[in-house]
Amino acid sequence: MPEEQLAVSDLSEPELLARIFPRLNSSSSMLLGPGDDAALIAAPDGRALISIDTQTQDQDFRLEWNNGYRTTGFDVGWKAAAQNLSDINAMGGRATSLVVSLTLPPATPVGWVEEFADGLTAAIAALGAEECSVAGGDLGRGREITVTVAVVGTLSGGEPVLRSGAVPGDVVAVAGTLGRAAAGWALLESSVPIERLTATERALIDRQCRPEPPLQAGPLAARTGATAMLDISDGLLRDAGRLAKASNVVLDFDPKALALHARPLESAAVLLGVEPMFWVLGGGEDHGLLATFPAGIQLPQGFTAIGSVQADVMPSGTGVRIAGQAADTVGWDHFAD
Amino acid sequence: MPEEQLAVSDLSEPELLARIFPRLNSSSSMLLGPGDDAALIAAPDGRALISIDTQTQDQDFRLEWNNGYRTTGFDVGWKAAAQNLSDINAMGGRATSLVVSLTLPPATPVGWVEEFADGLTAAIAALGAEECSVAGGDLGRGREITVTVAVVGTLSGGEPVLRSGAVPGDVVAVAGTLGRAAAGWALLESSVPIERLTATERALIDRQCRPEPPLQAGPLAARTGATAMLDISDGLLRDAGRLAKASNVVLDFDPKALALHARPLESAAVLLGVEPMFWVLGGGEDHGLLATFPAGIQLPQGFTAIGSVQADVMPSGTGVRIAGQAADTVGWDHFAD
Repeated sequence: MPEEQLAVSDLSEPELLARIFPRLNSSSSMLLGPGDDAALIAAPDGRALISIDTQTQDQDFRLEWNNGYRTTGFDVGWKAAAQNLSDINAMGGRATSLVVSLTLPPATPVGWVEEFADGLTAAIAALGAEECSVAGGDLGRGREITVTVAVVGTLSGGEPVLRSGAVPGDVVAVAGTLGRAAAGWALLESSVPIERLTATERALIDRQCRPEPPLQAGPLAARTGATAMLDISDGLLRDAGRLAKASNVVLDFDPKALALHARPLESAAVLLGVEPMFWVLGGGEDHGLLATFPAGIQLPQGFTAIGSVQADVMPSGTGVRIAGQAADTVGWDHFAD
Repeated sequence: MPEEQLAVSDLSEPELLARIFPRLNSSSSMLLGPGDDAALIAAPDGRALISIDTQTQDQDFRLEWNNGYRTTGFDVGWKAAAQNLSDINAMGGRATSLVVSLTLPPATPVGWVEEFADGLTAAIAALGAEECSVAGGDLGRGREITVTVAVVGTLSGGEPVLRSGAVPGDVVAVAGTLGRAAAGWALLESSVPIERLTATERALIDRQCRPEPPLQAGPLAARTGATAMLDISDGLLRDAGRLAKASNVVLDFDPKALALHARPLESAAVLLGVEPMFWVLGGGEDHGLLATFPAGIQLPQGFTAIGSVQADVMPSGTGVRIAGQAADTVGWDHFAD
């Protein structure tokens, strides 16, 4: 059978694994790698951060989008790594290991799975997480592609930065981009063929398919004294609301600071007839960080201020304001939980 | 809406989580539980065992079986915990934490999810793994139910028992049951209505739906000096072949010892017209342990000898023999990888 026509159902599990393993990196934190019932990894300070995330076909990605773009195995592998690495980043830690479960329809091309492994490895390298490697996994069949990754990380002896530590007077800051992945999703779902997009617009699709969480920023924020932090995975307003609720405070955003994040989205917004601030406030999946810092300290590299923390004198609503106005009265309430 | 008609799509994610969390146990190894981007768990000896397993609807379980049995959320939760706890057991360790990803069709009853959480908690308690708790998770939508659990465990300072350490002269032993889950699967798929089954036969279905891995046996085997060990998840012959290959030896089974494991299956075997040894040799999912021990030592509690380790003088075939005859010549080769 020609190599490019091979499907996963044409190979035994050992044959498929033999194609995956050489594509994965190795790291010193992996004491015992894949091949036994469990892997053994280093947890140097006697603790381990752990999180889990799933991507499901037609929910989190489409194999073929309305605009003609085809999601590659590389994209899905990259995103699986990136969104999990981001969860450890948001605690102020660094990821040390991933375990990966792939549920695949039998007709899935073997090449897709090989690209998936390449995407995992490429994201780990490109995002600067080389001490992280794939320690194990599971392969199974299903009607649709489902990819679950669990990530383990280390705080290197430090304390985790929780959602609950923000206090009135703190500065609110973000690291990474806002709204680009959401703009990319809108372009993918639009009827504008991908061939007609500019390089700037295509770059938004890249951020949806291969997000670039700022993995240096999380540990740096922790060392700098961030009082609270989380990963913006479901949209700035929604995630800010979670931080506000956990900390029992209000976050007040400066619209001018937010407007700077809208600029790179303007071309796509005009094309699709959308207000770009919609993506800035509502779009997740860039996997930037939202953090609060004590007033007066110099923000760590990568962070820019977008507002301030205020006391929650009226504990109702979303806990998020824009220039003092409740964010749920400016049209974004459909992003609230 | 009546409570029993509630589907997961009728609730927000926080509302669904609020129904799940109170059903989960807590343990001292959980330093920071669900609710932030990642959980923080203790890894007291500076290392962590990690593994991941997925169950997919219509591959690993059916919501309604041919014989009329309906898989409950409790069953799926129990099995998700049991098969992951077993992977840590097979290394000689004890599980400390689970992270759980649930992918659900929108119409899934909320009660199913609540029972799922109850099943996780019940398995942890019934199997004696109380130091383990659910540290985090992920909820998402899909066309079918997919449950992925990643497990973290500890060796408590000991060394892991690998698949690769068996040496000629060792005794081969098993802990736990063999073939019962496979017999249960055959009953579930048969046309014999569940109402017509005896208590003994129903107990086989229970082992398929709610397996009972011998979680005391793994750490005990490690302390007793087991030279190799793995979890029998894909069938005795197939898993023995993996151990034989990793250790570069042959495992020779005593048919009389294996026959003892066939007895509890005889009633179901007669009912379905099957040779019970088929289930003993080929059936996985009981999640018993296969281990090798130096000759002459007293086997730890829970283990019984079923054969011996021999040198692999003809390194081809499956590496498994029954009374000196290659197992792939006695009709079981369709279980080989």
